[in-house]
Amino acid sequence: MSDHLVIFTPSGKRGRVPDGTSVLDAARRLGVDLDSVCGGRGICSKCQVTPGIGDFPKHGVTAAATALSPFNEVEARYDRIRGLAEGRRLGCQARIQADALIDVPAESQVHKQVIRKAASDRVIEMDPATRLRFVQVPQADMHAPTGDWERAAAALAADWGIEDARLPPSLLPRLQPALAEGDGGITLAVHEAADGRIRILDLWPGLHEGALHGLAIDLGSTTIAAHLADLATGRVLASGGVMNPQIRFGEDLMSRVSYAMMNEGGAAELTRAVRRALGDLARQLAQEAGVAPGTILEAVLVCNPVMHHLALGIDPTPLGQAPFALATSSALDMPAADLGLEINPQARLYILPLIAGHVGADAAAVALSEGPGKSDDLTLIVDVGTNAEIILGNRHRVLACSSPTGPAFEGAQISAGQRAAPGAIERVRIDPQTKEPRFKVIGCDLWSDDPDFPAQSAATGVTGICGSGIIEAIAEMRLAGLVDRQGLIGSTEQTGSARCIAQGRTHAYLLHRPEDGPGDGGAEILVTQGDIRAIQLAKSALYAGARLLMDEMGTDSVDRVVLAGAFGAHISPLHAAVLGMIPDCPLDRITSAGNAAGTGARIALASLAARRAIEADVRAITKVETAIEPRFQEHFVAASALPHASAPFTELTRAVTLPEPAFNAGGGERRRRRRSADSA
Amino acid sequence: MSDHLVIFTPSGKRGRVPDGTSVLDAARRLGVDLDSVCGGRGICSKCQVTPGIGDFPKHGVTAAATALSPFNEVEARYDRIRGLAEGRRLGCQARIQADALIDVPAESQVHKQVIRKAASDRVIEMDPATRLRFVQVPQADMHAPTGDWERAAAALAADWGIEDARLPPSLLPRLQPALAEGDGGITLAVHEAADGRIRILDLWPGLHEGALHGLAIDLGSTTIAAHLADLATGRVLASGGVMNPQIRFGEDLMSRVSYAMMNEGGAAELTRAVRRALGDLARQLAQEAGVAPGTILEAVLVCNPVMHHLALGIDPTPLGQAPFALATSSALDMPAADLGLEINPQARLYILPLIAGHVGADAAAVALSEGPGKSDDLTLIVDVGTNAEIILGNRHRVLACSSPTGPAFEGAQISAGQRAAPGAIERVRIDPQTKEPRFKVIGCDLWSDDPDFPAQSAATGVTGICGSGIIEAIAEMRLAGLVDRQGLIGSTEQTGSARCIAQGRTHAYLLHRPEDGPGDGGAEILVTQGDIRAIQLAKSALYAGARLLMDEMGTDSVDRVVLAGAFGAHISPLHAAVLGMIPDCPLDRITSAGNAAGTGARIALASLAARRAIEADVRAITKVETAIEPRFQEHFVAASALPHASAPFTELTRAVTLPEPAFNAGGGERRRRRRSADSA
Repeated sequence: MSDHLVIFTPSGKRGRVPDGTSVLDAARRLGVDLDSVCGGRGICSKCQVTPGIGDFPKHGVTAAATALSPFNEVEARYDRIRGLAEGRRLGCQARIQADALIDVPAESQVHKQVIRKAASDRVIEMDPATRLRFVQVPQADMHAPTGDWERAAAALAADWGIEDARLPPSLLPRLQPALAEGDGGITLAVHEAADGRIRILDLWPGLHEGALHGLAIDLGSTTIAAHLADLATGRVLASGGVMNPQIRFGEDLMSRVSYAMMNEGGAAELTRAVRRALGDLARQLAQEAGVAPGTILEAVLVCNPVMHHLALGIDPTPLGQAPFALATSSALDMPAADLGLEINPQARLYILPLIAGHVGADAAAVALSEGPGKSDDLTLIVDVGTNAEIILGNRHRVLACSSPTGPAFEGAQISAGQRAAPGAIERVRIDPQTKEPRFKVIGCDLWSDDPDFPAQSAATGVTGICGSGIIEAIAEMRLAGLVDRQGLIGSTEQTGSARCIAQGRTHAYLLHRPEDGPGDGGAEILVTQGDIRAIQLAKSALYAGARLLMDEMGTDSVDRVVLAGAFGAHISPLHAAVLGMIPDCPLDRITSAGNAAGTGARIALASLAARRAIEADVRAITKVETAIEPRFQEHFVAASALPHASAPFTELTRAVTLPEPAFNAGGGERRRRRRSADSA
Repeated sequence: MSDHLVIFTPSGKRGRVPDGTSVLDAARRLGVDLDSVCGGRGICSKCQVTPGIGDFPKHGVTAAATALSPFNEVEARYDRIRGLAEGRRLGCQARIQADALIDVPAESQVHKQVIRKAASDRVIEMDPATRLRFVQVPQADMHAPTGDWERAAAALAADWGIEDARLPPSLLPRLQPALAEGDGGITLAVHEAADGRIRILDLWPGLHEGALHGLAIDLGSTTIAAHLADLATGRVLASGGVMNPQIRFGEDLMSRVSYAMMNEGGAAELTRAVRRALGDLARQLAQEAGVAPGTILEAVLVCNPVMHHLALGIDPTPLGQAPFALATSSALDMPAADLGLEINPQARLYILPLIAGHVGADAAAVALSEGPGKSDDLTLIVDVGTNAEIILGNRHRVLACSSPTGPAFEGAQISAGQRAAPGAIERVRIDPQTKEPRFKVIGCDLWSDDPDFPAQSAATGVTGICGSGIIEAIAEMRLAGLVDRQGLIGSTEQTGSARCIAQGRTHAYLLHRPEDGPGDGGAEILVTQGDIRAIQLAKSALYAGARLLMDEMGTDSVDRVVLAGAFGAHISPLHAAVLGMIPDCPLDRITSAGNAAGTGARIALASLAARRAIEADVRAITKVETAIEPRFQEHFVAASALPHASAPFTELTRAVTLPEPAFNAGGGERRRRRRSADSA
């Protein structure tokens, strides 16, 4: 009877331990994930377990009620002061005295799994880079005089196996007062970087069990979004976003690069603006969640390469021209204070690695979130913005590129285009028979043909059309036979619709008349021939990028398509397919991943293992540069048609049985083209 | 003839290398210390060598004039532009084509030896922690997009074997402009910490050969002294000192600790004062040497534990009482900016390790300078200040302690005492026959019995007596029979000197009368019975500390005594021996090391190997805490006598043949002692 069988659930790990071994020690020996901050002193309660009693034939063990030592004084005191749930034991106090089956509840696991809020059942396994560690530091000994920090470091090594921890000199002044207040006991916030370096980020007297927090920041060209999360549980306490204030220097990235190039001190101005916004957002989230900024010990930042460089104070000019040289591409683990974040002064900022000159940390975050390299399916992930980042891969190989789609998908370069904001048309349907449209605007739940629409949409009005709206409008126009394969809008005579009105030698489709309501006296909203050309250019670029990666992979088809990003979340897979934005794929295999970059940032915030994994994955990704690939141009030219009748259409719920129209382009457009060639 | 014998002088290293190997490559292969910044591109000239021609029987080689390839175009160009001394070759260009003897001149060695200015012939071997490294960074490649920094780091690894170098994020913005300006060539200031971590501290376009500088700072309680040196050559370009501004918070360390304890924010006030002074001194030295503050990339700081903690912003209160707990005792390698030094923003500050609660980085620096652990002789090193740091050791074992001598040796607690400043009596002689004194004051080269003394000393006056002056005065009084073994001053009747005047029940010796000149109308300068008691207490503490270490070492005698520090440089070994300040030792084995702590700081500044060595040495030192050793008290009590006739006296050049006097203490002193016991 000198040792006993012990089985831990849910891990199933098992082994024999000597009689009298504490459950916590047994867990450590068997590699079972059982939390502890105080290191087994019975004061932190993180190591709570639930012993099983009875027969467990599946596990091959019978556990008596006396398998563990009786409830002891330490547990009783803890129960009195803080309460211990029925059946729970402190793992550091309960000793194994017979064969036992012991369950580790989720809240006692460090590497607990957190279900993502998104529809998918993907989980994040917690593996926080920063953890609280209590140590009892032996008194100074005049015969062996070492510093208090050196004794604390020795205790960290002895009790926790944490070697070579560094205390920043600026924390030294707080060490001795904390030790004095805590009677030699001290809690350290121990941070491990992806490269294995160990730093102390903060310290408290005695046992400190306060929550530590982190920020996951998705720094986009247009908006900056962030989540404030609990570092131990992964729970999001506050989320928010602000406009990227750099917008006043240029709507799209390249105009900001130009601003930096053309204006003395321009890059510094852009840097100041974005850092100020990051600081404001951090403050705002802390306030909203009601947490002290000093408890925020980590931040994770994902962004595209231009934003990356501007945030770091690096002039992005080299990113504006071949060879698109990044100043640095590795993941960075740096003081958050370097970016002016007013959180804990020692807080670390982790920036995901960049994949290539046009494929940034945001794309790396998408890869981390979607894990193309973990899939048997060949998955195509597109994150559409001013540039589309495209990732194609499976467990054998992952490729990435970016494609210059331009801002049309974001509503820019569209005659009635606008940002996705209240009043913007975001959904469109056109009756194939009558050619009459109906639509929905952001901020109103009703379709425009609902009798209550004029009243309900009075607050927002109908102000324009956003990216997902123009996609649907053009796709519906194509499905309704209003637009031919070349993208030409037919005349009223050709289409039979009075909404096709002449504009010079081309035509436009009248999507909305102010007199139809809500009576805001706004302008007509038209889809013009120019709008269709702009979307054709954008979608051709996107399609060509995807095709280029498929060529490189040696395939003609993909198993799955994932639409990432805010835009991806709003466009309908059907309409994207009608437009030929993405390679052919069964409609039910086209899914939206929502803000996958933001999710990737949250995963990196929650997990050190994830940081290490994405750093390795990014190194292994094959980068394809579209700008220098002649085949990109070929695919681009070939992709301008609006296919309409390709494979996915057979799966449409609505019948698509219209004859294939073909409209002649007016001479006007040819003349225009000649004119612009003359003036070039 | 496929390989040749090559012998390098002065190292004597030899080996065979393939025909056509460059001298630089041969040196690297054979481990010969031959400098290079450009990595063998023929542009930096650091690798100059002088080939020998003829028979070298001692080396067993005959070298033809054609042993090296002819002077080539690169060398010719270098010679045209910058000049190459007669007979010199560039080691990276000259190729070995027969047996050769090659001399590496001192200026081409990294680890060149620098003779210390002090009288000793000790040398500092240069081993700079920060060195310039040129790398040619390959152009960005769109097919393998890595950041410019990653390619620079790869070049550092390939060309220089420097792995895992870190570029601080704040230098990233300067990387690409420097690469652009240098056509991909860039010079990096590469710093290696004692723990092996590699950091880039600065960078320049192309090949940069500007000098890098460092500060060696000796932060004393009273004065702060610093040297500004060239990091590559060790040459001191400027030296200077300022008073420690903390003096206004307390003359001695313990009164500053009290100030910190008793005043809210007191420690912070002390920290601000000393940091400001350090900053001022750094600025002053840079200005004096005419170097840009940005070229100062390193600083080394030595100081006692209280100054150490105050400089780092740590409340020193725990150092004021047992167990004298240090917040940290390890060497620190930290940003110099943390102490507010306005030098290069990335500059590193190295602080030597502390030995114990009362034995600081200054004592470690003394150990580094004097190397007791390298000596066969058992060496006693005493560095006298308010506390005396005492080190005893030989190559088998080194011990250290500190002893609370109090401020008497610095002129405090002495009736006419003052700091060592112009006007202070620093040397004293008393004629054993006439009992008449003569003395010298700081700021005047004449003895006071010189007829010109009154005129020459008019500028300084005779204002008081400094530490070395009081030592000599009392020792001379003892030698002249004016003071007995117990330290009592005799009366005129007992001594036959009218200068022994009554003061209550004790006597005082009149060292200087204002009417004797220089006619400044100052006060009389007396050596009182109280002065002798104060010096007896101080010297007993010093002696007892030394004896304690000798007991621990199991010895009754030492082979050498080294007096370190400003005080040690000024006191005469003879008089120290007469007073019994130090254990018996032949007078010619008592030497002064001058400012050994400052020298240690300079050595640490010059040499990374020295930093590593002293860190290891300090760990190995046996620390003895005088405060808790009962034998310290025993030695202290036994040491109060003034021995006068002990061993060293037989070596005196002046005859010491006076009868041994013995004076009765007056009842006054006994009464005083009783009174203070009553009031305690």
